[in-house]
Amino acid sequence: MTDILRVAVIGAGRMGADHIKRLSTRIHGAEVAAVVDVDLSRAQAAIEGIDGAVALASADEALSNGDVNAVLIATPGFLHEEILYKALEKGFPILCEKPLTPDAESAWKVVQAETARGHKRIQVGFMRRFDAEYAALGSLIRDGELGELLMLHHQHRNPTTPAGFTNEMLINDSVVHEFDAIRFFTGEEITSVQVRLGKATRNAPNGQHDPQHVLLETESGVLADVEIYVNAKFGYEVATQASFEDGIVNIGGDSGPYVRTSGRWGGAVTPGFEERFGAAYDVEVQAWVDAARRGEIGGPTAWDGYATAACCEAGVEAQRSGEKVKVQLNAKPDLYN
Amino acid sequence: MTDILRVAVIGAGRMGADHIKRLSTRIHGAEVAAVVDVDLSRAQAAIEGIDGAVALASADEALSNGDVNAVLIATPGFLHEEILYKALEKGFPILCEKPLTPDAESAWKVVQAETARGHKRIQVGFMRRFDAEYAALGSLIRDGELGELLMLHHQHRNPTTPAGFTNEMLINDSVVHEFDAIRFFTGEEITSVQVRLGKATRNAPNGQHDPQHVLLETESGVLADVEIYVNAKFGYEVATQASFEDGIVNIGGDSGPYVRTSGRWGGAVTPGFEERFGAAYDVEVQAWVDAARRGEIGGPTAWDGYATAACCEAGVEAQRSGEKVKVQLNAKPDLYN
Amino acid sequence: MTDILRVAVIGAGRMGADHIKRLSTRIHGAEVAAVVDVDLSRAQAAIEGIDGAVALASADEALSNGDVNAVLIATPGFLHEEILYKALEKGFPILCEKPLTPDAESAWKVVQAETARGHKRIQVGFMRRFDAEYAALGSLIRDGELGELLMLHHQHRNPTTPAGFTNEMLINDSVVHEFDAIRFFTGEEITSVQVRLGKATRNAPNGQHDPQHVLLETESGVLADVEIYVNAKFGYEVATQASFEDGIVNIGGDSGPYVRTSGRWGGAVTPGFEERFGAAYDVEVQAWVDAARRGEIGGPTAWDGYATAACCEAGVEAQRSGEKVKVQLNAKPDLYN
Amino acid sequence: MTDILRVAVIGAGRMGADHIKRLSTRIHGAEVAAVVDVDLSRAQAAIEGIDGAVALASADEALSNGDVNAVLIATPGFLHEEILYKALEKGFPILCEKPLTPDAESAWKVVQAETARGHKRIQVGFMRRFDAEYAALGSLIRDGELGELLMLHHQHRNPTTPAGFTNEMLINDSVVHEFDAIRFFTGEEITSVQVRLGKATRNAPNGQHDPQHVLLETESGVLADVEIYVNAKFGYEVATQASFEDGIVNIGGDSGPYVRTSGRWGGAVTPGFEERFGAAYDVEVQAWVDAARRGEIGGPTAWDGYATAACCEAGVEAQRSGEKVKVQLNAKPDLYN
Ligand SMILES: [Mg+2]
Ligand SMILES: [Mg+2]
Ligand SMILES: [Mg+2]
Ligand SMILES: [Mg+2]
Repeated sequence: MTDILRVAVIGAGRMGADHIKRLSTRIHGAEVAAVVDVDLSRAQAAIEGIDGAVALASADEALSNGDVNAVLIATPGFLHEEILYKALEKGFPILCEKPLTPDAESAWKVVQAETARGHKRIQVGFMRRFDAEYAALGSLIRDGELGELLMLHHQHRNPTTPAGFTNEMLINDSVVHEFDAIRFFTGEEITSVQVRLGKATRNAPNGQHDPQHVLLETESGVLADVEIYVNAKFGYEVATQASFEDGIVNIGGDSGPYVRTSGRWGGAVTPGFEERFGAAYDVEVQAWVDAARRGEIGGPTAWDGYATAACCEAGVEAQRSGEKVKVQLNAKPDLYN
Repeated sequence: MTDILRVAVIGAGRMGADHIKRLSTRIHGAEVAAVVDVDLSRAQAAIEGIDGAVALASADEALSNGDVNAVLIATPGFLHEEILYKALEKGFPILCEKPLTPDAESAWKVVQAETARGHKRIQVGFMRRFDAEYAALGSLIRDGELGELLMLHHQHRNPTTPAGFTNEMLINDSVVHEFDAIRFFTGEEITSVQVRLGKATRNAPNGQHDPQHVLLETESGVLADVEIYVNAKFGYEVATQASFEDGIVNIGGDSGPYVRTSGRWGGAVTPGFEERFGAAYDVEVQAWVDAARRGEIGGPTAWDGYATAACCEAGVEAQRSGEKVKVQLNAKPDLYN
Repeated sequence: MTDILRVAVIGAGRMGADHIKRLSTRIHGAEVAAVVDVDLSRAQAAIEGIDGAVALASADEALSNGDVNAVLIATPGFLHEEILYKALEKGFPILCEKPLTPDAESAWKVVQAETARGHKRIQVGFMRRFDAEYAALGSLIRDGELGELLMLHHQHRNPTTPAGFTNEMLINDSVVHEFDAIRFFTGEEITSVQVRLGKATRNAPNGQHDPQHVLLETESGVLADVEIYVNAKFGYEVATQASFEDGIVNIGGDSGPYVRTSGRWGGAVTPGFEERFGAAYDVEVQAWVDAARRGEIGGPTAWDGYATAACCEAGVEAQRSGEKVKVQLNAKPDLYN
Repeated sequence: MTDILRVAVIGAGRMGADHIKRLSTRIHGAEVAAVVDVDLSRAQAAIEGIDGAVALASADEALSNGDVNAVLIATPGFLHEEILYKALEKGFPILCEKPLTPDAESAWKVVQAETARGHKRIQVGFMRRFDAEYAALGSLIRDGELGELLMLHHQHRNPTTPAGFTNEMLINDSVVHEFDAIRFFTGEEITSVQVRLGKATRNAPNGQHDPQHVLLETESGVLADVEIYVNAKFGYEVATQASFEDGIVNIGGDSGPYVRTSGRWGGAVTPGFEERFGAAYDVEVQAWVDAARRGEIGGPTAWDGYATAACCEAGVEAQRSGEKVKVQLNAKPDLYN
């Protein structure tokens, strides 16, 4: 095991701040060395109470800071590419929040750049793979106890959307998690995407068509579908039902204290993704830190970032056309096999 | 199979009205021939729309009515005894709502009267034995798949109590169902009762101590306990958890449509015993009708009525003294073995 | 209320025998007067122990029997048409198991024949409408408490299929229930059907492609999908998840005693449709009997039989072509509005 | 925040090894500096792969090691006392696995020793307080949303017991957790204990009476009961049902992937306390480390250790006598108010 990770966190928004807190209070073997944000005051607020951390306004500065030896990228997706190249050049371990980059073309270039260097340095932040129930379903599929997997039914529901959340973002920011999950569960690439637009909720802001029903197929013919519903009001829900040859498995059910009061039985819905996947984020980041200290990565690769970007492009086209759209993928570099 | 049952229903209160509706719209092989109530207008209201039924003010009249060949007793418990003797004399099949009679001494006389005639004619209305989950747990215990039964934990909760509901009624009217249930599950008599009085709810009317914790033992040493809570506000709940040598079984869980809205997941609590045990009452009455047409009874006996009355007496004494009180039982007549 | 229903049950197979038992032991206001089966010995076995019932080999004989005043049709679907016409001619109340007839054209003729007579006499056996949870979801949708209904996700799983069960039967005999359910829930007609064929289970007999994913739309744009899986091995499951503007509702969850033993928690899966929908069948037949005695029908109409037949035709075409197929419907006669 | 905690872990058995792994791979702000075990080879095995940790055979040596500044005690309970005094003398932060000491008299001396020094340094390892559902129920009770708490029903079930597990250990090692939990939930001391011995499982080793039913009361009259069942075979279960004036709350229900296969629905039971409370142990130790770095403690105190020891003494006496036994407590030093 090498030295402790001294992490530069790039981006101190909601996700970045969450990771800063995680790294500086719960993760073993890593500390926050620097926080970068174009809004320097936000970076300064984020390092309060963290011994030895500095606030900076540029990623360049952070990467050249002698105290830094690892990077966590939590900026908006369109800013990832440039930072990725610089961090790759430094040879730093990188945890890059999804998306790797906003489109398949630029993601493919990142894959090529990493491949050229011959080492996997980039881990992409698909945290669901680290959720205990996702992991358990993944194992069930691989173990084959219930025979072959045949179908996957996904529900992905958010209470509300931030201002400016477009139809494209519904695919690129939300369904992207299911693209990765389906690839994770099946160990296969997704071959086509179709999108059904039906009756829309009155609660969707102007121009947004919500919910949508996304249909997918994998290489071996597993059929998947996703109800993506981002103004579902009641709370957050991410659930999957998997149909096997010899049984059915559900994950993502509600839990927590069970109350009977005022004529109702039940409990509280998880309000958002931080609460739902908080433990998964911890496991993800600890896995990254542990692997990085061994010179490896501990989760989804740049290839996963590229392949999901290709699915998103097909998804957005399918959303517009109503047709079934093929997913276009370059050949997979050996580095990722 | 003999003729259709022409039933005189004695008592047109809440429970009687429920049975009148049941007999005249859902039960096969029986019709309401007469309804008796001291309040004749209530009897008249109850027979509205029922072809061939008459409203009467006296049970005597009903039992002598040539059209009547069976009796369902749904009056207050203190009126049961006299009607039971008259119906036994007629040789009619009898379904008597619980309690058989209000005390063990009078119940024992009924047992002796029936025994003297040599035929079981009285079925007592412990309807829980006809609930699908009660029946399933009963089977599990008898089948021995999970080894020996060791403990039974009961919850019995009502939203509110009617005016004038006393501490004694909490035992005699409510826990009496668990006395029968425990005897049904174990196939044994209850040997002692203890009652714990702790903190009481502010929602209990004056003089009532609610909830109470009732502790019981059976002949073989099975330990049972009952939380009886009759002002529980949220709705109705009757549930049991049974501990076996090789596993644990719960019955009486919540069910129905599962809703996620307004930050909560869950469903509606059953509001009262009619909704919770409506199907059990149907099965109970159909079992009685089917058996009666064969000259038999199809459920709990007068002995069960007597034994539960003895438990109630011990329970009320235990409630007063705080001590463990033995249940006193006469020897069981052969008729009931 | 008119006289008791004296029912001729046509067909003494699995479904017919079930209805014979129901009518002669649980339903109030009806008795089995005659049982018809081409295999007379099967009809004779079915009436054993039923006072006043006769076994006959022809439906004609039964309909002319002076003791008969109602008909329950439980023969294979291709035999329904002829019996329906004869029973309509008699003016008898009719409970016809689904399908009304095997194709939309013949079903339309039945609709026209009934319309010509000016009275609804035919009730079609879509029993799910009488299931307590189906009814509850239907009420939730109509009441609008959760806003507008947007999507319906259905699972329909059987443990195995009988010999000779074809791909077409998967639509005509199985998904037909969802066609009716979706129409019942939404109060709208289904406008299109698409079928996805993916990876198939090794447990499907030769030639059968199982499971299949069926996609539907209604007049107002509600999107529905059905996983139809008829060799699912583990047991029987019929469940629905409904997405509303203001919440999500699930029906058809597992229930019954909850056991912890041998490292597992849970319970027994309902083995088949009789156990799952037994209570619904009782409610359905009682509703038919009660309505018939008032000269009415108490459930789905001949129009429902016709409309679902049209959905089935579109479904089978969609299954073959892989394309989205429009459902073709004639104008609805006023009799059914 | 002061320096990182350099922890001496005393005892490298099952619990100690678990904490060593926790401290050296998941907890932030602490590292294992030394591991002590009378079996030196066990200590050596435990530090494998941990940079900078030493294996030692004596606690004295560890406490005098300049690199150590905190102590985690995970030896058998009868060895705690001596180490506690030495660590108190050093002024080190201490996390002491339960029990504080094996009896109330020695525990009281520890309380006095700590009180004399004027600072709380000892945190006792009642990890359930750090379980998310325990914490949630605790909040519900304190918030008063459901009115006053009235009753607590506990189930505590283990699959098997280690060799030599006596009836006394059933109270001292198992029910001790409920003693603390009830004190945590109510914020009150326990005033009496009664133990019911009924039918025993065939699976209990010689001399052990299992299960037992333990009855408790708190200062304000809350009634609690515990089914303690340590040879329950099916797996591990720790659950509580709390009855309030305005509702009922359950915690500790089963969870995880939900499977339907082979005629059963359900999931896997948690096999043991490590799996059930693994996350709680992490939260507990992190809370201790965070507080210790601020010069405080972050959980149950030495007083809690003493008070539960007094409950255990009453419990063992109650087990022998069958009578209700009062819990004897000295006055609480101000340090703990
Ligand atoms: Mg992420
Ligand atoms: Mg009753
Ligand atoms: Mg049907
Ligand atoms: Mg502990």
